[in-house]
Amino acid sequence: MTNGTPLVGIVMGSDSDLPIMRGAAEALEALGVPFELTIVSAHRTPDRLFEYGRNAHERGLKTIIAGAGGAAHLPGMLASLSPLPVIGVPIKSTNSLDGWDSILSILQMPGGVPVATVALNGAKNAGLLAAQIIGSGDDAVRKKIIAYKQTLSSSVLKKCQVLETKGWK
Amino acid sequence: MTNGTPLVGIVMGSDSDLPIMRGAAEALEALGVPFELTIVSAHRTPDRLFEYGRNAHERGLKTIIAGAGGAAHLPGMLASLSPLPVIGVPIKSTNSLDGWDSILSILQMPGGVPVATVALNGAKNAGLLAAQIIGSGDDAVRKKIIAYKQTLSSSVLKKCQVLETKGWK
Amino acid sequence: MTNGTPLVGIVMGSDSDLPIMRGAAEALEALGVPFELTIVSAHRTPDRLFEYGRNAHERGLKTIIAGAGGAAHLPGMLASLSPLPVIGVPIKSTNSLDGWDSILSILQMPGGVPVATVALNGAKNAGLLAAQIIGSGDDAVRKKIIAYKQTLSSSVLKKCQVLETKGWK
Amino acid sequence: MTNGTPLVGIVMGSDSDLPIMRGAAEALEALGVPFELTIVSAHRTPDRLFEYGRNAHERGLKTIIAGAGGAAHLPGMLASLSPLPVIGVPIKSTNSLDGWDSILSILQMPGGVPVATVALNGAKNAGLLAAQIIGSGDDAVRKKIIAYKQTLSSSVLKKCQVLETKGWK
Amino acid sequence: MTNGTPLVGIVMGSDSDLPIMRGAAEALEALGVPFELTIVSAHRTPDRLFEYGRNAHERGLKTIIAGAGGAAHLPGMLASLSPLPVIGVPIKSTNSLDGWDSILSILQMPGGVPVATVALNGAKNAGLLAAQIIGSGDDAVRKKIIAYKQTLSSSVLKKCQVLETKGWK
Amino acid sequence: MTNGTPLVGIVMGSDSDLPIMRGAAEALEALGVPFELTIVSAHRTPDRLFEYGRNAHERGLKTIIAGAGGAAHLPGMLASLSPLPVIGVPIKSTNSLDGWDSILSILQMPGGVPVATVALNGAKNAGLLAAQIIGSGDDAVRKKIIAYKQTLSSSVLKKCQVLETKGWK
Amino acid sequence: MTNGTPLVGIVMGSDSDLPIMRGAAEALEALGVPFELTIVSAHRTPDRLFEYGRNAHERGLKTIIAGAGGAAHLPGMLASLSPLPVIGVPIKSTNSLDGWDSILSILQMPGGVPVATVALNGAKNAGLLAAQIIGSGDDAVRKKIIAYKQTLSSSVLKKCQVLETKGWK
Amino acid sequence: MTNGTPLVGIVMGSDSDLPIMRGAAEALEALGVPFELTIVSAHRTPDRLFEYGRNAHERGLKTIIAGAGGAAHLPGMLASLSPLPVIGVPIKSTNSLDGWDSILSILQMPGGVPVATVALNGAKNAGLLAAQIIGSGDDAVRKKIIAYKQTLSSSVLKKCQVLETKGWK
Repeated sequence: MTNGTPLVGIVMGSDSDLPIMRGAAEALEALGVPFELTIVSAHRTPDRLFEYGRNAHERGLKTIIAGAGGAAHLPGMLASLSPLPVIGVPIKSTNSLDGWDSILSILQMPGGVPVATVALNGAKNAGLLAAQIIGSGDDAVRKKIIAYKQTLSSSVLKKCQVLETKGWK
Repeated sequence: MTNGTPLVGIVMGSDSDLPIMRGAAEALEALGVPFELTIVSAHRTPDRLFEYGRNAHERGLKTIIAGAGGAAHLPGMLASLSPLPVIGVPIKSTNSLDGWDSILSILQMPGGVPVATVALNGAKNAGLLAAQIIGSGDDAVRKKIIAYKQTLSSSVLKKCQVLETKGWK
Repeated sequence: MTNGTPLVGIVMGSDSDLPIMRGAAEALEALGVPFELTIVSAHRTPDRLFEYGRNAHERGLKTIIAGAGGAAHLPGMLASLSPLPVIGVPIKSTNSLDGWDSILSILQMPGGVPVATVALNGAKNAGLLAAQIIGSGDDAVRKKIIAYKQTLSSSVLKKCQVLETKGWK
Repeated sequence: MTNGTPLVGIVMGSDSDLPIMRGAAEALEALGVPFELTIVSAHRTPDRLFEYGRNAHERGLKTIIAGAGGAAHLPGMLASLSPLPVIGVPIKSTNSLDGWDSILSILQMPGGVPVATVALNGAKNAGLLAAQIIGSGDDAVRKKIIAYKQTLSSSVLKKCQVLETKGWK
Repeated sequence: MTNGTPLVGIVMGSDSDLPIMRGAAEALEALGVPFELTIVSAHRTPDRLFEYGRNAHERGLKTIIAGAGGAAHLPGMLASLSPLPVIGVPIKSTNSLDGWDSILSILQMPGGVPVATVALNGAKNAGLLAAQIIGSGDDAVRKKIIAYKQTLSSSVLKKCQVLETKGWK
Repeated sequence: MTNGTPLVGIVMGSDSDLPIMRGAAEALEALGVPFELTIVSAHRTPDRLFEYGRNAHERGLKTIIAGAGGAAHLPGMLASLSPLPVIGVPIKSTNSLDGWDSILSILQMPGGVPVATVALNGAKNAGLLAAQIIGSGDDAVRKKIIAYKQTLSSSVLKKCQVLETKGWK
Repeated sequence: MTNGTPLVGIVMGSDSDLPIMRGAAEALEALGVPFELTIVSAHRTPDRLFEYGRNAHERGLKTIIAGAGGAAHLPGMLASLSPLPVIGVPIKSTNSLDGWDSILSILQMPGGVPVATVALNGAKNAGLLAAQIIGSGDDAVRKKIIAYKQTLSSSVLKKCQVLETKGWK
Repeated sequence: MTNGTPLVGIVMGSDSDLPIMRGAAEALEALGVPFELTIVSAHRTPDRLFEYGRNAHERGLKTIIAGAGGAAHLPGMLASLSPLPVIGVPIKSTNSLDGWDSILSILQMPGGVPVATVALNGAKNAGLLAAQIIGSGDDAVRKKIIAYKQTLSSSVLKKCQVLETKGWK
């Protein structure tokens, strides 16, 4: 992980979610935002859930990214326990209904307890959103976000040139 | 509530769920199964959730009925915390997506942590299922279930007679 | 099957459902709850359906687990015929609509006839739920449930250690 | 009902389905096809279900129309029990999920046991389909079908004239 | 095809539907019901559609089975043109939305023009339903249906014995 | 209707669709594009359907707008019969499944036979799209489209001013 | 609006969204976070969209809340244009498909351009999430969040007492 | 590309969409309609989006075909910026929800800003629709459309002959 006290906590319900959730870690690493990454299961380790959620802001975290699939309760329970903004990543796991269950059980939180939900399997975007949140109070991080958006644009323009040179066939 | 130590705990996330959840209470009352009924919000009272879930079986409850709507985490979190069978009632609340969110976030629990889910707004059936669960180890309650099923049947047959007498017009 | 008179009946509509439904058998075996397992088709063997449903409780069963896919009528018809709690397992069979048909035709039972529905392909959880139902009236079984939940938790914590030692990359 | 031995049996799970299911009766009446109409609940009167399904063809019925809502098992169970063609009418009842549950639990029957499903609340079309089935072996009924289709067409053409005369404003 | 004047017309929108639709032909062949099978595209051969629909009953057909995928208009347009009962088979083709488009555009016909819809890819059941329709006016065919249902039942019972002999492991 | 030979044909399956479909007429009238409006039912007046579709371009129409609900076959059948661009308006009629059936049976046309589908009940947009199609070969109409888009923008900006003056409370 | 330079920009596609979106304003007002509120339509005022998105962070905003319904492009386009975290509120407007279109067109953003999506009509939660984002870099705001969460909890506990005193009947 | 000033602009959000979108290019090439093809990303190159949308009609284009997946904003934003008819192709990309997100975020445009939506992955039909639009003001192109429809029909009739000769087995 990037050096320095972690500002972002990335958690997931199971190590089987790591192939998706590493996208969040890679995005934060690329932007130089220090983070931690671990497993917290709402359904199998409720004590750990409570401890993680209750203490996250005391330990210096600024935001939490939580990924889960199926009847995904991890993001919402962390949002219940922590005053930090919680980003939820719906995961299309093998036991999910094409991801609809993951999306709805993360997105449709009741009034008073928001979860900032990103696209299905959208862990990379969760990492970027966490950086944007850090960046809303930290100019250095925001400049990196602005630079990142320019690379997005240049990369598309380069592909345009390739297409125009080679033709579509 | 019916006299005697409660055997069933009926909980809901908000008092706005009471018009639906009272169906469970009425079914248990009709079958003479003692129960308790209260509010536990997974998202607004996480400490109460933990306490309720952890202690339910110590207090003599045999099963828990939990109703919730939207990103409904109450039944699943109780199933995480308690060794008792937990019955989940998906509620079609005003902020739910026609109930699909309520159903999927209760039904699609991961391996190891089942929730016995009933139909959308199916609180009456949750009460009957709780009685059947009690009845699986208690002959007096099972006999009441058998009698109840006979009244279901007679009531349909009576309607048949009315229809045949009056005609369908 | 575990020795002793069966307490749980596991039935399925077709032997093609066995690869999923064996999850229920394995869960019960692991918890030492005696069970039986057979095929009952609501649509192809209606006489067998009637006989099974009507006699299950006379034969000493305490709960029935029924798995079916597509327009899945087996769990609901058994719930119609038997006073026992019936657990329904929606199966994502090749001729099902991603499992939506299986879920809705098991879950959405009318008032008076509940089916305790578990997640799509959730046979393992059906087995655990059956054990919890037996355990609600049998302390020895409940202790096994409590121990099982502790192994769930330890297994997650072990994975946390591995992840923290090896890192996420 | 139209005079003569009933050729079509119209059944429904509950008298609350009558406002929809009368559409089938009216269609048959208009075409002069004799029918009977009664209540058979798959879940509340399973004995009656068996008796009705097993004997329908012995009593001279040529086809059965069955309407049900939610986890609708009536049409499929009748198709299991009877050699007659069974027409299923999915009903959008108050406890159904906008009718999706009714449709899927009637339509998605397994190989070997078809149900001829019509549109949600499509009882009128069920009546017409029953008449078409009778008409496939009875020229007098088929002629009435042909005449009926001509009235459909003329009634549209009349509306065209009204529209063209009055204008769309 | 089975000898004799065809009583059933099986049509499909494209030869790519044949791997599914042959299920209808095989079912009719097994029951000895003579049929014809060809291609009629509502969208690519509208003249052929009209001719087929208008003349089917004049040529001696008793019912039509029509299979189509995506925005499937073939069954409904044949039902518009012909007085015969039309059976629709929704096909899950590569350009369909998991079959939902096929189902809804066949099932949800307006009042006056029914299509007898079977399950997604349910061509075998369409064949059986066609035989049941013929059988409603022809005792020899009905007897074959009754015999067929008995083989369904025996085949399940045989599988029960295998399972009980070999065990579920 | 606007004077001049009609360039756009607006058709609908039933006069009950007029309250929605008049939105197309009003949009064309506002932009000064001459049109005709009538009823053509794919299912009830198939002959009229054929005649309308086959002759539309001979009569000088440049595009057809067709609205229908449920298993909506009118737009697709017109697209089958006519070389003109056909715009489909899915209508949320009382017998439709919240409009999903209308959308899918219009949108999901097979390769070779496109329908330009607009939003559910989007008749106004169908009118605008027809004008854009005319405008792609007619500068006067395109200028009206450009002017129309400016009024859209000004009307929003005016609402901004009102909101800023009055405040959001 | 709360005094001070706005830290949050609340925008919506149309003034018809105000009855929903005012929930965001009220939440921010209650927490003392200064904000601005106006109308920006992605489809009707694209120039205003560009200007708002490009300049928001220059004007001192820390986060943007954007509400829209149907094919909702406003949140995603602002996320494309601005380096700030953008919170999207899917609105169930009259021309939306029960809100599914609003949700999916806001949530399912491509890699590189996240939108923090909240529940359907969840404007209040969008306001809270914006405050949490501000609070991640501002201790005073975070303390208000913590206090707010305590009022959520107390309000539920008070309802428990009422329920226990009055009983559920 | 076909010689001559392009009349149709084909754009897509990413070069990963080319395998689908080339269907539009091939259809236009086959009909001899000159076109251009390039990449424009609504989310990654918003400036390019604006420039393309604002100038398309000045450069002589008569219609635009835009393909995109997930939260697909490209077609709708081009429709916002340009007075030309815009054809939207929903793409079932790897990060889309089986294409439902792509369809709804293209189809459900608000009043005033239509997008002519074709089937999921229906790029070929988008090309044909563009040609039909050109053809509504250009007799030479329309004749090609009429000829194309005849080849569709002949190709089906040829398959009929093959099937009738070879039989269905």
